[in-house]
Amino acid sequence: MSHPMPQTELDPLKEKLLTMASYAEAAVNGAVKALIKRDDEMARQTDEGDDMIDRLEVEIDEVALGLLARRPEPFQLRLITSAMKISSNLERVGDEATTISRRVIALACEPQLAQAAEVPVLAKLVLTMLKEALDAFVTGRVDQALAVIPRDREADDLNRRLQQALTATMMQKPASVPRCLHLMVICKSLERIGDHATNVAEDVVYLYEGRDIRHVDLPSL
Amino acid sequence: MSHPMPQTELDPLKEKLLTMASYAEAAVNGAVKALIKRDDEMARQTDEGDDMIDRLEVEIDEVALGLLARRPEPFQLRLITSAMKISSNLERVGDEATTISRRVIALACEPQLAQAAEVPVLAKLVLTMLKEALDAFVTGRVDQALAVIPRDREADDLNRRLQQALTATMMQKPASVPRCLHLMVICKSLERIGDHATNVAEDVVYLYEGRDIRHVDLPSL
Repeated sequence: MSHPMPQTELDPLKEKLLTMASYAEAAVNGAVKALIKRDDEMARQTDEGDDMIDRLEVEIDEVALGLLARRPEPFQLRLITSAMKISSNLERVGDEATTISRRVIALACEPQLAQAAEVPVLAKLVLTMLKEALDAFVTGRVDQALAVIPRDREADDLNRRLQQALTATMMQKPASVPRCLHLMVICKSLERIGDHATNVAEDVVYLYEGRDIRHVDLPSL
Repeated sequence: MSHPMPQTELDPLKEKLLTMASYAEAAVNGAVKALIKRDDEMARQTDEGDDMIDRLEVEIDEVALGLLARRPEPFQLRLITSAMKISSNLERVGDEATTISRRVIALACEPQLAQAAEVPVLAKLVLTMLKEALDAFVTGRVDQALAVIPRDREADDLNRRLQQALTATMMQKPASVPRCLHLMVICKSLERIGDHATNVAEDVVYLYEGRDIRHVDLPSL
C-alpha cells in the first residue's frame, strides 16, 4: 500500500520558486530604477543577476520531476505543475529585465527624449501586476490573482500609445531613431512582463480552483 | 499492487501534440507565404487559425495532468512533462505567426521596401529549425535535435543585421518609418520562432537522454 505524500515534501519546491520570484522581481526593479535614474552601472548589475534565475529554473524542474514520480495528490500535482509553469514565466521575466538593462546602458550615453517620461508609468503598472500575481500564489487569494488579469489590457494600451508617440518622433527627427528604438524595445519588454504576470495569475487560479481560464474571455470586473 | 501504465495510454497525448505541431507549422508557413506574396487574404486566414492552437494547448495540459496522476514510469513522466513544455512553445509560435500576419496585412497596402527581400531567408531558416526539432521529437533522433541548437545563433545574427539595415533606412527616409517598423516586428517574431524551435530541441534531448541542456554552452559542432 502506498501512503500519501506529506505536504512538507513540497517545501523545497516552494522555497526555490519564491527565491526565483524574488530574483525576478529584483531584476525588473533594478532595470526600471536604472532606466529612471539613467544609471548604467545599476543596469549592468541587473544583467549579471540573470544567471541565478536561469539556474533556479533548471533546479525547479529537477525537484518537480522528482516529486511527480512520488504519486502526488491532486492538489499537490497541480502545485508541482503550476510551479514549473510559473518558473518558466519567471525565467522569461528575467530575460526581459536583461533586455531592458542592455537598452538602458545604450541609452545612458545619449540625450534624454521627452517620451521617456511616460515609460515609468508602464513599468510601475507591470511591476505591480507581477507582485500581486506572486503574492496571490503565496496567499492563495484567487480574487487577487483574478484582479491582475484585466490590468493586462491597460499595459497593452499604454504600450501601444507609447509606440505611436515614438513612431511620430522618429518621423519628425530622424536623428532620434536609434534612441526611440531603444525605448520601443524597453516598452515592449515591459508589456511582455505584464503578459507573464497574467500567465502567473492564471496559473494561481488553476492551482487553487482547478479551472483553466487561459484563452477564455473573463467578464470584466 | 499497482501495474505500470501501458505505453499506449500516452497515444492521445502524442496525437494531440502532433496535431498542434502541424497547426503551428502551418501558421508560420502561411504567415511567411503571405509575407512573400504580399497576400493579405492569406494573412487573415492565418490569424484565424490561432484559436485552434490555443484550444489544443489547454487540452494537452488536461490530458497530461490526467496521465501524471496515473503513476507514469520515468520515460513516460519525461514524455508527459516534455509534451507540456513543447505545447507551451507551440502556443507561442502560433502567437508569433499571428503577429507576423497582422503586420503583413498592414504592409500589403504600402509600397514594398528593398530590405523586405532578405526577410524570407530568416523565415526559411527558422521554419526549418522548427520542422527539424519537431521531427526529432517524433523520431527520437537526438543528433537532429542537437543540430538545431547552434542554428539559433545564425537566426539571431541575421535578425540583428536586418534590424540595423532597417534602422539606417528609417534615418535616411523618415517616410519609411512605419513600414520599417512593421518589418522589424516581423523579423523579431521570426527570431523568436527560432528561440522556440531551440527550446523544443532542448526538450527533445531531455526527453530521450534525460539531461537538461538549457542555459548550458554546448561545444560548437
